[in-house]
Amino acid sequence: MPHIQLQEGLPGIRGLFAFRLDTARAMSQLAQVLLHDENTLTRAERELIATYVSSLNDCYFCQTAHGALAEAHLGGNAALVEQVKRDPENAPVSGKLRALLVIAGKVQRGGKSVTAEDVEGAKREGATDLEIHDTVLIAAAFCMFNRYVDGLATWAPRDDEEGFRKRAATVASVGYMKLIDDLQAAAAAAGKP
Amino acid sequence: MPHIQLQEGLPGIRGLFAFRLDTARAMSQLAQVLLHDENTLTRAERELIATYVSSLNDCYFCQTAHGALAEAHLGGNAALVEQVKRDPENAPVSGKLRALLVIAGKVQRGGKSVTAEDVEGAKREGATDLEIHDTVLIAAAFCMFNRYVDGLATWAPRDDEEGFRKRAATVASVGYMKLIDDLQAAAAAAGKP
Repeated sequence: MPHIQLQEGLPGIRGLFAFRLDTARAMSQLAQVLLHDENTLTRAERELIATYVSSLNDCYFCQTAHGALAEAHLGGNAALVEQVKRDPENAPVSGKLRALLVIAGKVQRGGKSVTAEDVEGAKREGATDLEIHDTVLIAAAFCMFNRYVDGLATWAPRDDEEGFRKRAATVASVGYMKLIDDLQAAAAAAGKP
Repeated sequence: MPHIQLQEGLPGIRGLFAFRLDTARAMSQLAQVLLHDENTLTRAERELIATYVSSLNDCYFCQTAHGALAEAHLGGNAALVEQVKRDPENAPVSGKLRALLVIAGKVQRGGKSVTAEDVEGAKREGATDLEIHDTVLIAAAFCMFNRYVDGLATWAPRDDEEGFRKRAATVASVGYMKLIDDLQAAAAAAGKP
């Protein structure tokens, strides 16, 4: 049971977004820029970083939701998503992404764990300053999202991979702001501020 | 030395904000809602929660910047800020804030560390669902900000308490969005997008 009273039927962060739209909008804008807007890192790469960090933080909702998004952007390659979560060092991804996943894993433990050698390693594989910046911030942001979702003990359906895939297909296509616009419209229709 | 090339002279998160304005704006909006906008938790209480979490994450820039903000909102009571950081259980704050600091400390370790008993304890002291929500999200957000600042090895001046106090007085008065507007204006003047 969630620690605070949330609208029923909205799993994970969606119940929290409906509870507080002002913070939801700011967080969704951050997700939109980091994960969906144009970037030299592909959407699949960015969602894999988000999924990997969420799995390190053992957040069921986030690793399942963003794992489904990574899968969608990978054209349905669920096996690769699982491999990145379980054994990123040996997953068949580019050397650049492998080096960025090392940095993301360090950020999950704490900012100071990232070493100059980790960053040099990523640069040697062709990562730009902006890509390193975005990797650190995606990892840091999921240390927030994961704690938000689990710190308030939100509910999420288990064994509903199809539901997560369906939802992921929508977000993969329209991005992260549509949910907020919909929640705002619903709140206005219900006469809430 | 920072892991990526940042504008010199802008310490901590400010250099990162100048590096990437799109993410800076979203993060600043989150800080504005959580720490500055109207709330049943005082600004001092919210900045104390932010400072406490930043000190648990050992982030020098954030704990000093937000410690100075808490101090400003407390009318200059630096001793109380130090006490909350070092020994929150015995700091002379309300029972409600003490219970919320327990929750914030749990969030810093991981979302699943927060127990129903922790939340019940805060409710017994009069905390509302919204106050519990905001406490969890402030703590989670600083787990992001701290990792962002230290994961990219940003620079911050040491032994410049006066500088941090001066800057805190400005933010305490104008809020968190002014810096972004100023950075955007500077970027436009320099012909950057």
